[in-house]
Amino acid sequence: MKILHTIADVRDELKKARTAHKTIGFVPTMGYLHQGHLSLMERARQENDVVVISIFVNPTQFGQGEDLDSYPRDFERDSQLAETVGVDLLFAPPAQEMYPEGYTTYVEAEGSITGLLCGRSRPGHFKGVTTIVSKLFNIVMPDRAYFGQKDAQQVAVIQQMVRDLDFDIDIIPCPIIREEDGLALSSRNTYLTPQGRKEAVVLSQSLFRAKEMIESGEEDASKIRAFIIENIRSAKEADIDYIEIVNARTLQKIEKVQGDVLIALAVKIGKTRLIDNIRMEV
Amino acid sequence: MKILHTIADVRDELKKARTAHKTIGFVPTMGYLHQGHLSLMERARQENDVVVISIFVNPTQFGQGEDLDSYPRDFERDSQLAETVGVDLLFAPPAQEMYPEGYTTYVEAEGSITGLLCGRSRPGHFKGVTTIVSKLFNIVMPDRAYFGQKDAQQVAVIQQMVRDLDFDIDIIPCPIIREEDGLALSSRNTYLTPQGRKEAVVLSQSLFRAKEMIESGEEDASKIRAFIIENIRSAKEADIDYIEIVNARTLQKIEKVQGDVLIALAVKIGKTRLIDNIRMEV
Repeated sequence: MKILHTIADVRDELKKARTAHKTIGFVPTMGYLHQGHLSLMERARQENDVVVISIFVNPTQFGQGEDLDSYPRDFERDSQLAETVGVDLLFAPPAQEMYPEGYTTYVEAEGSITGLLCGRSRPGHFKGVTTIVSKLFNIVMPDRAYFGQKDAQQVAVIQQMVRDLDFDIDIIPCPIIREEDGLALSSRNTYLTPQGRKEAVVLSQSLFRAKEMIESGEEDASKIRAFIIENIRSAKEADIDYIEIVNARTLQKIEKVQGDVLIALAVKIGKTRLIDNIRMEV
Repeated sequence: MKILHTIADVRDELKKARTAHKTIGFVPTMGYLHQGHLSLMERARQENDVVVISIFVNPTQFGQGEDLDSYPRDFERDSQLAETVGVDLLFAPPAQEMYPEGYTTYVEAEGSITGLLCGRSRPGHFKGVTTIVSKLFNIVMPDRAYFGQKDAQQVAVIQQMVRDLDFDIDIIPCPIIREEDGLALSSRNTYLTPQGRKEAVVLSQSLFRAKEMIESGEEDASKIRAFIIENIRSAKEADIDYIEIVNARTLQKIEKVQGDVLIALAVKIGKTRLIDNIRMEV
């Protein structure tokens, strides 16, 4: 596995692959890799000749007072894990390689797709995401890019951006990977206290029960939402940011549970903000 | 020359060229082609295996009350002219192909590079330009793209965007083409009345005289600017929007005329807003 730190080196390396008509699969990450990330890389490994990943804690997607500085990092471990699953090229640029002095261009999906859910609590977050992903797409020029469905809104926003800006790239959403007790894997789980870790299971459990309700015929979104809220409030350290039942593509709220449905939530457990969701065709 | 109207058809056509390792030169236009546009295509013809042009009057770069609806169009003549200079592929999409329902993503170079000069009189204009050019770049994926230096700010903004978003495309600015009396070619010249057409020559004449002043040793930007203002005011129908002396790359105003200098102006002659500029290394 090659580890490269500059855009020019990545271009040079991938030019060879492209000239030889090899397909390129790409997994952008912020590092501190867990089995969720690795599942994306394994899928990319199966479907492409060359697998590229990036590790970059992108400052423009963090708001003021958010956890940019404390975001967990372990490059040694990350690069070993990436090599294990057959990654060919790891791109790990310093911040000034991506945002040099005088940087001023941003890509933004406007409107409710970025304004609701996490976008409401984290203004500017998705603008940072679409900007860095555009840059990485232009550097790597992959055939396919893999994103975890855990960040459901991120997937929807990137699909919107790819459609709108005519990127010739297939976006492949991949299933959420969970701990045995159901907690969705996240680099931020490392922030949880032992007590918080126990209580965090209430998120996925609520979603699974909501799914059962829907499968048993419940169609009223407000009833399902009320049930989830009640459930999560039973956890002492839980502080709800949002719980919404929406169309999975447009992220617009729905009243009747039908079609491509996404139940998404963000909850603080102590000081740690966690997100989770479940998507189902009803 | 092929004329194509859909993104999918352009992709298919260019995939063949790319697979055969042919280089692609691209000239985006809003049509109503004149010798300025054709000079870009001729340059692209010399430097690339395949020459692609687009004709698209881009609605997102026109403000409210601007001339979107009346912007001159003559597709028959345009396609004949393009064929004459050896264009291989003309992409002429309908508006809904570029901005389908639910469209929401924009690319914007923020700050003074888009906020000054034409950006001050035409808020949102350059956001429309960077958005459509990003889309066209992603569709055509050229090796080189050609822009007229007549739109000097547009060139600077696109170069900024290409640097920031890491497009792997060479931006080639090409010299202004002028009528015999000095008037810079523009599709909007067609709006001029006979009297306005006569008076419009004051723009280029002022710039040429300013250049002579600088070549004779004048370094004080405010003196040169005052001279141009006085000159242009001598034309009865002239109404100055701006006249600025700036650094050609950053578009920041300069007091002392040195380095990569751009003198740029926008002036209404009657109801027609014209721009012109001169760039010089001092």
